[in-house]
Amino acid sequence: MFTAQALPLSAPRALAEPLVIDVGLVGPGKVGSALLGQLRQAMPRLLRDCRLQLRLRAVSDSRHMWLDCDDDALNGRVHGAQTWRPAALDDFAAYVGGRGGHVAVIADCSASDGVADRYADWLAAGIHIVTPNKRAGSGPLERWRRIVGASHASGARLHYEGTVGAGLPVVQTLRDLLDTGDELVAIEGMLSGTLAWLFNRFDGSQPFSTLVREAHALGYTEPDPRDDLSGMDVARKLVILAREAGLPLSLGDVAVESLVPAELAGGPVADFMEQLDRLDAPMAARLRDGGVLRHVARLENGRATVGLRVLDPAHAFAHARLSDNVIRFATRRYCDNALVVQGPGAGPDVTAAAVFTDLLRVAGALGVKRCAC
Amino acid sequence: MFTAQALPLSAPRALAEPLVIDVGLVGPGKVGSALLGQLRQAMPRLLRDCRLQLRLRAVSDSRHMWLDCDDDALNGRVHGAQTWRPAALDDFAAYVGGRGGHVAVIADCSASDGVADRYADWLAAGIHIVTPNKRAGSGPLERWRRIVGASHASGARLHYEGTVGAGLPVVQTLRDLLDTGDELVAIEGMLSGTLAWLFNRFDGSQPFSTLVREAHALGYTEPDPRDDLSGMDVARKLVILAREAGLPLSLGDVAVESLVPAELAGGPVADFMEQLDRLDAPMAARLRDGGVLRHVARLENGRATVGLRVLDPAHAFAHARLSDNVIRFATRRYCDNALVVQGPGAGPDVTAAAVFTDLLRVAGALGVKRCAC
Ligand SMILES: NC(=O)c1ccc[n+]([C@@H]2O[C@H](COP(=O)([O-])OP(=O)(O)OC[C@H]3O[C@@H](n4cnc5c(N)ncnc54)[C@H](OP(=O)(O)O)[C@@H]3O)[C@@H](O)[C@H]2O)c1
Ligand SMILES: NC(=O)c1ccc[n+]([C@@H]2O[C@H](COP(=O)([O-])OP(=O)(O)OC[C@H]3O[C@@H](n4cnc5c(N)ncnc54)[C@H](OP(=O)(O)O)[C@@H]3O)[C@@H](O)[C@H]2O)c1
Repeated sequence: MFTAQALPLSAPRALAEPLVIDVGLVGPGKVGSALLGQLRQAMPRLLRDCRLQLRLRAVSDSRHMWLDCDDDALNGRVHGAQTWRPAALDDFAAYVGGRGGHVAVIADCSASDGVADRYADWLAAGIHIVTPNKRAGSGPLERWRRIVGASHASGARLHYEGTVGAGLPVVQTLRDLLDTGDELVAIEGMLSGTLAWLFNRFDGSQPFSTLVREAHALGYTEPDPRDDLSGMDVARKLVILAREAGLPLSLGDVAVESLVPAELAGGPVADFMEQLDRLDAPMAARLRDGGVLRHVARLENGRATVGLRVLDPAHAFAHARLSDNVIRFATRRYCDNALVVQGPGAGPDVTAAAVFTDLLRVAGALGVKRCAC
Repeated sequence: MFTAQALPLSAPRALAEPLVIDVGLVGPGKVGSALLGQLRQAMPRLLRDCRLQLRLRAVSDSRHMWLDCDDDALNGRVHGAQTWRPAALDDFAAYVGGRGGHVAVIADCSASDGVADRYADWLAAGIHIVTPNKRAGSGPLERWRRIVGASHASGARLHYEGTVGAGLPVVQTLRDLLDTGDELVAIEGMLSGTLAWLFNRFDGSQPFSTLVREAHALGYTEPDPRDDLSGMDVARKLVILAREAGLPLSLGDVAVESLVPAELAGGPVADFMEQLDRLDAPMAARLRDGGVLRHVARLENGRATVGLRVLDPAHAFAHARLSDNVIRFATRRYCDNALVVQGPGAGPDVTAAAVFTDLLRVAGALGVKRCAC
């Protein structure tokens, strides 16, 4: 009576030739290099199993870039071998995106605002962007709207799973909750591995400054620990989640409690490290409030706050391990018990994996099939 | 020098007309009804924001089905109004999938093996399948291979996020880890909300049977509590995860420790409930081993086990709240601290949301864009 027929729409990739994606990498630093390694290792498997051909076309840091072309006018040559040439983001993007008929993706693994400034143009030109760079999602709202608008208009994707919780499934989880009609009650998170580590260990047996010095020496903090202690990095992540939830928040809207006294906020790192003891008295006072001290980001009723919280020892955050990030989504459906994602929220490998996952989502949206067997 | 151009491939949906997806629902039970409600509520938003038009075409339970056509030969009529007609899965699928040019998705919200038996044919016919039904993924390996093969050949998708942890991001998270080249060390999970609840409360102050009776009265257990206590439902979930990780496991390969004594395994529920006290002595003995008792599923070195474990009180599973599911992925990248997903792992609403998310993934693979703003 009826005939079920194979729908061409539903099988765009399975039998066709491989999908080719040209990849350009901005920022071959810690995360960028890890990504290059992961891509290189995965390429044969993806081609064989998913019929996805990834091709690295260009790499740029802040000073020079490499393009995979043979054009001597573009690439310097030393004894015939290609060398890096001065960086120029526009030429870089035009080169990556200029291969008619191919899909182009730029992976921005810098932390640069200048790179984020180009997103709108790149998206408008049909180039997809995947990035752990928090600048676009937490920067000026007007720029963010231009970026999103360009993505809408051209259909090119922007994915940024790595911006919050590194490789933990956070942004996509929020997206899925909202897209299926759930309603956000609150997001509560420990979004800094460094601060989690510090407050997991801070029990009064040692001055706070000793712990900061230890973390600094171990490389757990940013080169300037104030970048962690100020809470601004956490506030950026909260802004990204807030915007994902449809709230037009900016960094200035977040009530951030900095752990750095105002009089130490400026000046060279070395000076700050020398005066670190001045954090000890105020931090010890906080500890005397009882309970468990944790650095918490919270979004609730449109209000975003970042700072120290005194938690009940039974609170889930009190049991998080060492430097783990924890993100709790309380929603209409997850009202009694929240949906919780937890684990290491930093590190080049897991962050690069988030960028790679984003890249596979772009491929997925173009019909590339990922599979279990 | 280069011209970045808008790539047609990358903008299939943004400017085009809406993508129409014809949806057929098998199993309008607790989850299926919740899904219908969620779809109905989301339809206008998805059409407006994502240019995705979902159309409910047909619904079938085990006895009758409803098709949205006006054909009197198909649908019974009472005073001109359409009524349900006898169920016939082949006609159902042919009707849902027979709309030339449209995408067809069947949401199987039954727990039926008979429905899973049709998956291969439906996929071969280009019909996508989304389901929380564990039967296909944990049933005979040969059938599973036929299903996956059909999906590969036609390109039609099969998604089953809801089979493990209901709405928690579990299957997709595992997929992403593996696809980006991570290597699984172990999966450890508390995959039964019912058993989690029982062992969270079982501290020796009350006999185990009292807690089972309480859970049964509260509707926390299956109508026959042995379906929970046997551990088979958990074993099914573990098989699904193992296969997702590329291991050709079947239910018979899982070492399952049943909490139901062999002599009580058969017979009517009422008889079992009357003899529940016979569980008390063995369970009390387990408790005397010290530590915290938890029902744990584990996949490690290709070995799958399900049963009671005595855990250190510091173990993350010891702190899970009430009936939460917890899933820990230990991988090469997440080696020191695992990636953990936690939250309610059952309930019609969150399970339906998983099916809905799967449906949106099908739409995403066809170019539908989901967005933040
Ligand atoms: N590392 C983590 O654990 C982690 C976790 C989550 C998110 N992230 C984010 O991931 C990104 C990369 O982090 P990372 O640790 O890899 O940093 P990194 O090691 O400092 O690397 C940054 C890279 O970006 C390049 N860069 C800077 N400005 C640039 C510009 N204007 N144009 C082109 N390239 C530019 C740098 O090149 P030069 O050498 O020329 O300066 C360097 O190659 C950051 O956005 C960070 O916030 C990192
Ligand atoms: N409920 C949860 O919290 C949860 C969580 C995770 C996963 N799941 C899974 O989700 C699925 C649905 O669960 P549920 O709680 O909604 O079950 P339910 O309330 O018992 O509903 C099952 C539905 O499937 C229908 N059905 C059974 N056999 C069928 C057949 N051969 N053909 C067509 N329809 C058939 C039933 O129709 P009749 O009324 O005609 O029998 C009923 O409408 C199950 O696979 C379950 O394991 C449920």
